[in-house]
Amino acid sequence: MLKINNHRLLDDLAALAAIGTTAEGGVNRPALSAPDIEARAWFRAQIEAAGLLHTQDGAGNQSAVLPCNDPSARTLLLGSHLDSVPHGGRFDGALGSLAALEVLRTVKESGLRLPVHLEAIAFTDEEGAHISLMGSRAIAGDLSAEELDHPHSSAEAFEAGLVRAGLSREIILSARRDSASLAGYVELHIEQGTRLEDTGTAIGVVTAIVGIRSWWLRFSGQAAHAGTMPLPKRHDALWGASDFILQAKDLVMKQYPPGTVNCGIIEAAPGAFNIVPGAVRLSLEFRHGDPVTLDAMQAALLPLAESVAQEYGLSVELQPASHTAPALMDEGVVQAIEGAADMLGLSHTRLLSFAGHDAQAVRLIAPSAMLFVPSVQGISHNPHEFTRDADVVNGANVLLHAILALADKR
Amino acid sequence: MLKINNHRLLDDLAALAAIGTTAEGGVNRPALSAPDIEARAWFRAQIEAAGLLHTQDGAGNQSAVLPCNDPSARTLLLGSHLDSVPHGGRFDGALGSLAALEVLRTVKESGLRLPVHLEAIAFTDEEGAHISLMGSRAIAGDLSAEELDHPHSSAEAFEAGLVRAGLSREIILSARRDSASLAGYVELHIEQGTRLEDTGTAIGVVTAIVGIRSWWLRFSGQAAHAGTMPLPKRHDALWGASDFILQAKDLVMKQYPPGTVNCGIIEAAPGAFNIVPGAVRLSLEFRHGDPVTLDAMQAALLPLAESVAQEYGLSVELQPASHTAPALMDEGVVQAIEGAADMLGLSHTRLLSFAGHDAQAVRLIAPSAMLFVPSVQGISHNPHEFTRDADVVNGANVLLHAILALADKR
Repeated sequence: MLKINNHRLLDDLAALAAIGTTAEGGVNRPALSAPDIEARAWFRAQIEAAGLLHTQDGAGNQSAVLPCNDPSARTLLLGSHLDSVPHGGRFDGALGSLAALEVLRTVKESGLRLPVHLEAIAFTDEEGAHISLMGSRAIAGDLSAEELDHPHSSAEAFEAGLVRAGLSREIILSARRDSASLAGYVELHIEQGTRLEDTGTAIGVVTAIVGIRSWWLRFSGQAAHAGTMPLPKRHDALWGASDFILQAKDLVMKQYPPGTVNCGIIEAAPGAFNIVPGAVRLSLEFRHGDPVTLDAMQAALLPLAESVAQEYGLSVELQPASHTAPALMDEGVVQAIEGAADMLGLSHTRLLSFAGHDAQAVRLIAPSAMLFVPSVQGISHNPHEFTRDADVVNGANVLLHAILALADKR
Repeated sequence: MLKINNHRLLDDLAALAAIGTTAEGGVNRPALSAPDIEARAWFRAQIEAAGLLHTQDGAGNQSAVLPCNDPSARTLLLGSHLDSVPHGGRFDGALGSLAALEVLRTVKESGLRLPVHLEAIAFTDEEGAHISLMGSRAIAGDLSAEELDHPHSSAEAFEAGLVRAGLSREIILSARRDSASLAGYVELHIEQGTRLEDTGTAIGVVTAIVGIRSWWLRFSGQAAHAGTMPLPKRHDALWGASDFILQAKDLVMKQYPPGTVNCGIIEAAPGAFNIVPGAVRLSLEFRHGDPVTLDAMQAALLPLAESVAQEYGLSVELQPASHTAPALMDEGVVQAIEGAADMLGLSHTRLLSFAGHDAQAVRLIAPSAMLFVPSVQGISHNPHEFTRDADVVNGANVLLHAILALADKR
């Protein structure tokens, strides 16, 4: 059975990890930073050394292309991204990009002739140093000119990054691709969780990337002297917020697994040792892969905030902060991944991705799915992110055979 | 029976409230600010208009003195302060200072000859714009040169305020008085709570000013991706902090009434919608009038923080922030106040003061106690602070007769 070249892939991972490497053993390679640009140049050199075609679109997405003989054939995409979060790990994005390149090298060397072009793509700025999922949203036509004017960083920093990378804001949207030209997309990624590790499963097959709803809650009571106002008479906004935090956790854990909820930001006003909090601002975020369940979570969590507020003699204002719909993966691509794992004798399970990925944009223009390999202790966006060599190799081989299966079907 | 002049006292209260008055109907008269200096000048003018002696010590404490014929007689002090918190109310401090002045005017007009000097004193900076209880701690010898170098405001702001008031840092400590010269101290104040209002009681007799212990708690867990880290695996520091806040409240409410507890400051780190809080910094403050109970509260609350932390897989660091011992009032002065209330046919009850007052410093050099009159809804340190005219008058008459009783005993 055809297999990828283990050493070549592991050597590539080590070589890329040496670019932007940090003292803690991770990498610091935010999109369009000097280390990212060094990584991009290195990736291009690997593509050319492998005898593959190199392309770069207006959004700076870089690809290795293994063309088929028929110029009118569709393209099967596979890939991920080279950029990292600040002080992130060596595997997030890198694994999927380098495994995709290795798949193309393996297919090329095998002499197999496929009815599709294969394109191993590394998307620009998945992590959102400037614009989250910039490259994948650009090819999917899911990026607007207005967004380009309001990067997370600043217009100046974004412009400087683009110039550094030899890119230009004016042509980013030109990267948009025609869905008729695409046969599918497969992305290999580390899990960033512990479900595979906990169950000793080799491969996770992603059926959906979760939707995320974010709200600001503002509990209002009455600020008071922390000595003279008796406890039973207080309208302490922090009591209500605290009770909500605990009840929201219990509710989601019991009724909406594997959905998640997080309160990551909290602020009490006026904010003094000796003043009873009159108001608390609290961030609320919850995630689920199923849009109906996400609606149900919202229909439970927001009234919970209101009833808890009432119980403590408080009021609560609810203000939406952001909203990302769940991204369903393509059942055909999911089955191709499962079939490849079966063929390789690797255990697999369907799961949700609780983090965002390029696949959630690409699925707008091509049947898409993802596969995960285990992350040790689920540690991610962290220099201690780690995936074992055997899992790296397993993931790349499943990617290879999923691609071969999908190619045959087109 | 001798009574104070109601209209004169109420007119004085209105006149003082017009100095530093705010749009919301309160006053903004922090110590040594321009409005405070205007109030000080006005107070001096009232003293002189009443034919009383005016004195001002090195700490800027201003007094009206009604001397007795015997130069070797001791002094019976009564008073409070003229400064307010920023955007505070019209009664806190003002009531006690003006009632004291009115008592001296009433005694002077009555022709009574007492065996003590009477001194109505308005202390500097009770509220701590620069140094909490500065004037009363200065006369009690409870202020150090080091503290004068580290005001709450800044060395520059403090110096500017002193200059504005015609004072000088070098002579503040010279205000220290000899306890042998003092016969006692009585302070009338608004309750700033609702125990009198709730029970329809006219006069509260303070048996102790509560001790206050303040701690910083730091709960530490593990920051994590708010999507990929499953809820059951999280070490969310905010879950532990929230549970502690609720359990601490329940514990103090059930086991240590009328003690209080407050968590007024909370901060979660790293502080993002999509990151599970890895650490939470929380302020904890608790109060009680009985030093033994205060110890017991501490012996219950700190281990509670530790056990809650453990339950959530967190650690907690406990760091003391400040510590004020309970200040017991003098039983003889307490009984003099109760006797005066009885004589006037006014209901009274013993209670704790949950806020700090000048009396807690003065008791170090003179037998001291306080009396409270009702505050509408307990609102205080707030422009809506309010005490009814009848209660103002009742308080001043009890102060008058307590002073007369104490004077007779010396």
